[in-house]
Amino acid sequence: MKEFLNIGIVGLGQRGTFMLRDTILPQKDVNVVAVCDVYEDRCEDIARLIEESGRPRPKTAQDYHEILKMDEVDAILVTSAWEAHLDITCDAMEAGKIVGFEVGGAYSIEDCWRLIRTYEKTGVPCSMLENCCYGRNELMMLNMARMGAFGEIVHCEGGYCHDLRDEISYGRENRHYRFRNYLNRCCDNYPTHDLGPIANILDINHGNRMLSLVSMASKARGLHSYIMDKEGAGYDAATFDFAQGDVVTTIIKCAHGETIQLTLDTTLPRAYSRRLQVSGTKGMYQEDNQSIFLDGRENEFHDDWYKRWNNIEEYREEFDHPIWKQFIKDGVNGGHGGLDWLLFRAFVDAAKEGKGAPVDVYDAVTWMSISVLTEQSIAMGGMPVAIPDFTNGKWIERPKWEP
Amino acid sequence: MKEFLNIGIVGLGQRGTFMLRDTILPQKDVNVVAVCDVYEDRCEDIARLIEESGRPRPKTAQDYHEILKMDEVDAILVTSAWEAHLDITCDAMEAGKIVGFEVGGAYSIEDCWRLIRTYEKTGVPCSMLENCCYGRNELMMLNMARMGAFGEIVHCEGGYCHDLRDEISYGRENRHYRFRNYLNRCCDNYPTHDLGPIANILDINHGNRMLSLVSMASKARGLHSYIMDKEGAGYDAATFDFAQGDVVTTIIKCAHGETIQLTLDTTLPRAYSRRLQVSGTKGMYQEDNQSIFLDGRENEFHDDWYKRWNNIEEYREEFDHPIWKQFIKDGVNGGHGGLDWLLFRAFVDAAKEGKGAPVDVYDAVTWMSISVLTEQSIAMGGMPVAIPDFTNGKWIERPKWEP
Repeated sequence: MKEFLNIGIVGLGQRGTFMLRDTILPQKDVNVVAVCDVYEDRCEDIARLIEESGRPRPKTAQDYHEILKMDEVDAILVTSAWEAHLDITCDAMEAGKIVGFEVGGAYSIEDCWRLIRTYEKTGVPCSMLENCCYGRNELMMLNMARMGAFGEIVHCEGGYCHDLRDEISYGRENRHYRFRNYLNRCCDNYPTHDLGPIANILDINHGNRMLSLVSMASKARGLHSYIMDKEGAGYDAATFDFAQGDVVTTIIKCAHGETIQLTLDTTLPRAYSRRLQVSGTKGMYQEDNQSIFLDGRENEFHDDWYKRWNNIEEYREEFDHPIWKQFIKDGVNGGHGGLDWLLFRAFVDAAKEGKGAPVDVYDAVTWMSISVLTEQSIAMGGMPVAIPDFTNGKWIERPKWEP
Repeated sequence: MKEFLNIGIVGLGQRGTFMLRDTILPQKDVNVVAVCDVYEDRCEDIARLIEESGRPRPKTAQDYHEILKMDEVDAILVTSAWEAHLDITCDAMEAGKIVGFEVGGAYSIEDCWRLIRTYEKTGVPCSMLENCCYGRNELMMLNMARMGAFGEIVHCEGGYCHDLRDEISYGRENRHYRFRNYLNRCCDNYPTHDLGPIANILDINHGNRMLSLVSMASKARGLHSYIMDKEGAGYDAATFDFAQGDVVTTIIKCAHGETIQLTLDTTLPRAYSRRLQVSGTKGMYQEDNQSIFLDGRENEFHDDWYKRWNNIEEYREEFDHPIWKQFIKDGVNGGHGGLDWLLFRAFVDAAKEGKGAPVDVYDAVTWMSISVLTEQSIAMGGMPVAIPDFTNGKWIERPKWEP
């Protein structure tokens, strides 16, 4: 096992910067030896940030191929624009670099298969860095599911519900890829934050499989309304016709008969939620009211006679995931309430042993493919679309995912 | 205008009894002159209940045609099993009786058209008694929508989420129609409680229209699990193969680009919810956390940095529907937290003037048809299904619904 992991970071926008500052730099066993972005000023800013933290200045590059050629780089972190994730990831595997790539949706099914082929050809460890798989509530639900607290699970829900109107509307000024995506595509463009934890709970690709989906999108009004309010009709984007519907709703059917309902809601005013819901024969969890309802347990009566819920906090002691119990004992660290820390430690610990973690390429492309498939279903008026089996049948025997 | 409304009630199960006791008998201008049920004991129980309230004993009948022949009956209330609603309703209209029929889903599109044809031929006032259209929160949301508080509404959600395992499992013993329906059908069998208020908010059939839907059902495990727990494997129904999936999820697309997401969840442990959500360019409402989020208003920060919600109670003064402001001032009466009272008063006041209210036949069958159409979509793996225009084009000009 390596004592230190030397990494190169490709993509230095908002996510790369945030991840570096709050989660990567505090790690004693990780050296950032190279950073890359197509924009030179971003490279400079990040190089300075690293130097100011007392670390050596990294090599900077505007072409990521330069970094892939560096012998001293053990692993590549891909925090680029969505469209470039798989190009960079495949090239890094071809160069023999362990890869951790940020979340996003896929643009074609062929691109998903390319990742699988490249992984199977090179054998280089490659993982998607899905931090929400380490969410405290998400892991608690996984723990409860495995303990049988919900009985047989028949239905799950999730969503990526995040008011991103400011980020998207000013995406050109801020060089953010969401602007061009929202202008041109209509799909569930960001499915993994919500679907990933649900897929773990339902053992998708690990004894279960997603078979098909249907998806519909509402009209697109949120961005136009926001831009008109902020900038008025004179601003060019006020006349742009955004393709991305404000709310995209998707239903997925699984091999063992479960349904999954997903929502993307990113261009309307609202509070953030990943909307996790788990429904089984013995109980349910619902994130939007932070409540657990278990059959036969004391369920409180609230407001109306028919509203009986217990707050999730009453069940922490009993069901919190062991990883989080330990994490809290150690003192929670890192960005996004600790998610990034747990995620990145899983990646680093595996990479130092020459392994991959946390989300392998089969799970990664299965989750990412939802963007392509919802785009197809929406375009065809909600037609059911088959979800490919990216494991080629191995899903039946693959062991359960562990955080 | 009539001083008194003489009614006959057809169907004396749980709903008929509850409605009579809590909502109908207290009305000073309503006389129950006839009651009918295929079970003689139910007729006797209800006749006794009416006598004990100090009113004259009604005529009892096991065949509703006898009641339709009574000259002194002005109006018929249909609170029978779902399957008989439209038969009784159409026969009553043919007999010249004003009709109010209870909620439920349709079994065929032809049956929906039959109601329309019978209404258009006879001209007899006929309404569906959808009490949830009078829910305080539902009417507040209608009021907010019409005031423009949500901006342009792009998406709504709703559900009928009610743990009915006991009622359904013992449906044969209790002579409840749900048992046979759950054994034989798989669809959103009860769409109007959630869809009705949403349809009013989105002006469905009053300037807008539902165009198509897709629907998927989870596996059916809740009833079997419940029956096994309660009765064990020796009870015959423990071996029955219930057709009704535990959770049915539906997405509807509207003529003006809005989407509606509906959930039926009635055979799993959970707290009751109609899950109303309204999402627009300026704000949203979510029933499951009783919260309103309006753009530019002071939104509170709760729990996590990203959870900003205001409780609905903070907006009551500003947005409560005038009908509810008055109702609270008068002292709320009747069953289901006042819903039944407001509903029944609307019916009685209209019927005394020879008119129909609250939900006309066009809206009624449009909402009821969702049961048929989800059944079709589910059977075809989630295929999109077209929603008929039961108004034959008149939806474009029909004036907005008013409670």
